[in-house]
Amino acid sequence: LAPSEDKNFLSALDAAAVKVDKELDNLLPNNGGRLHAAMRYAALSPGKKLRPFLVLESAGLFGEVNTQCLRVAAALECVHCYSLVHDDLPGMDNDDLRRGQPTTHRKFDVATAILAGDALLTLAFEILAHSATHNDPFIRTQLVLHLAKAAGEAGMVGGQMLDMEAESKNNSTLAEITTIQRGKTGALFEFACVAGAILNQVDQTPLRQYAEHMGHAFQIADDILDVESTPQNLGKATQKDKAKGKATFVDLMGLAAAKSKARELADQACTSLQSFGAKADMLRAAAQYVVNRQR
Amino acid sequence: LAPSEDKNFLSALDAAAVKVDKELDNLLPNNGGRLHAAMRYAALSPGKKLRPFLVLESAGLFGEVNTQCLRVAAALECVHCYSLVHDDLPGMDNDDLRRGQPTTHRKFDVATAILAGDALLTLAFEILAHSATHNDPFIRTQLVLHLAKAAGEAGMVGGQMLDMEAESKNNSTLAEITTIQRGKTGALFEFACVAGAILNQVDQTPLRQYAEHMGHAFQIADDILDVESTPQNLGKATQKDKAKGKATFVDLMGLAAAKSKARELADQACTSLQSFGAKADMLRAAAQYVVNRQR
Repeated sequence: LAPSEDKNFLSALDAAAVKVDKELDNLLPNNGGRLHAAMRYAALSPGKKLRPFLVLESAGLFGEVNTQCLRVAAALECVHCYSLVHDDLPGMDNDDLRRGQPTTHRKFDVATAILAGDALLTLAFEILAHSATHNDPFIRTQLVLHLAKAAGEAGMVGGQMLDMEAESKNNSTLAEITTIQRGKTGALFEFACVAGAILNQVDQTPLRQYAEHMGHAFQIADDILDVESTPQNLGKATQKDKAKGKATFVDLMGLAAAKSKARELADQACTSLQSFGAKADMLRAAAQYVVNRQR
Repeated sequence: LAPSEDKNFLSALDAAAVKVDKELDNLLPNNGGRLHAAMRYAALSPGKKLRPFLVLESAGLFGEVNTQCLRVAAALECVHCYSLVHDDLPGMDNDDLRRGQPTTHRKFDVATAILAGDALLTLAFEILAHSATHNDPFIRTQLVLHLAKAAGEAGMVGGQMLDMEAESKNNSTLAEITTIQRGKTGALFEFACVAGAILNQVDQTPLRQYAEHMGHAFQIADDILDVESTPQNLGKATQKDKAKGKATFVDLMGLAAAKSKARELADQACTSLQSFGAKADMLRAAAQYVVNRQR
């Protein structure tokens, strides 16, 4: 994949990360104790913050990017980060490194990591249900309901379970790994993109289509990076899927076809945004970034 | 403690458990896969279902016990059961037995138990946010907010973390273990008791006072049972606190004073319900049961 050189996009991504980190810093509790320290370590680590960026950009299509959007973005990041903490545990992927830093259970201990993950997930719903997230309680219930569906057994957790089961299976089809990834990664991407539509009570369809194509492209690109990049560059272990005998998009499609499919999906994601015109250019840049990124 | 001989109470507790199990059976997903099987194993195990009982009884003070109350009771039981699944994990208490059956990670595996716990917690908020739980979205957001606070870092998870930290401390005071238990056990009891008031938009104060006294009595009685009962009777390991060097109410107060304090708290719980008259007799019986139970 060609290096991403979209300077405008990268500085917008950085600016969003700064805003969301500030909001998270406000929302995360901090009594100096071990649980709060672990929650903050997990949620304030130097990630790309792509999901919160998508919340802010999609909400920005319909109105100003205010505290309400930032709270939704922060809640989503809490869910994403809890899932990484639990995923990295010895009983799951047993990873020592995440974003170039020790994983939460290596920095603290396993019990603290389990509890910090649980507390981050719970905090996400507390943030969404609070009146500061929107003055209309119906909209708050829609946000809670949508995030719970995206994060739970029919979404992210369900995808993670299928992914675990695929390890012992060793002969997954393209349709099967597409289903796994749609749950594991796609469901939270979808929430990120439609949250702005929920906040503004407008049709979610174009943003849902964008998210589906973009999430799919993201996961294929992840598999390509896993083959072409290094642990030093990615800040986490590479080629783990191969070691575990798990099929990837690259295995099943071949490297050239995977690259071409990722580009095609990014283009389809952009097409889904047609009705928004130039206002959606940053979301289009995000779709291209997802397939062109180096980490 | 004297054996509980309140037949009326015990049959009401059983009847509530049957209703709540039926509601949980409806609400828990079931595609035949491993994740759903583990969620159902954890949530439909033969527990006393005391917390759901408290939801139904306290809601019954203000109106009929309908599907709305049952959904709230089921959501609370999902949270309680997720916390048991995660508590029992090797990285936490490392227990093999719960309610006389293999713990979820022993029946399935650690990864499945982590994910099933995560999915149960997430499902609880999905249930509460759904319009079937109450037609007024404001009330649904209050339920989500209250349960999140009770379950999260300022409630149950926070208490569990303090409990873990107390293991290495070895010299907790009575005030400290009261704080630990108020989070670990008390916070969900409080939600159980005030949920009916939230559903009916009435003053939560008397039920909150009842819950505080009753939860405290429950935990002292737990420590007494841990000393006086057997693993066969309790369906779980006993005297673990001693082995870990954790202080209990019995250690710090002495057995006789602990029994007398538990009875005093049960009486105070009953007094808190004065304004409800005879309608609250079953909640009074619950407070007495909590200190008289044999397991």
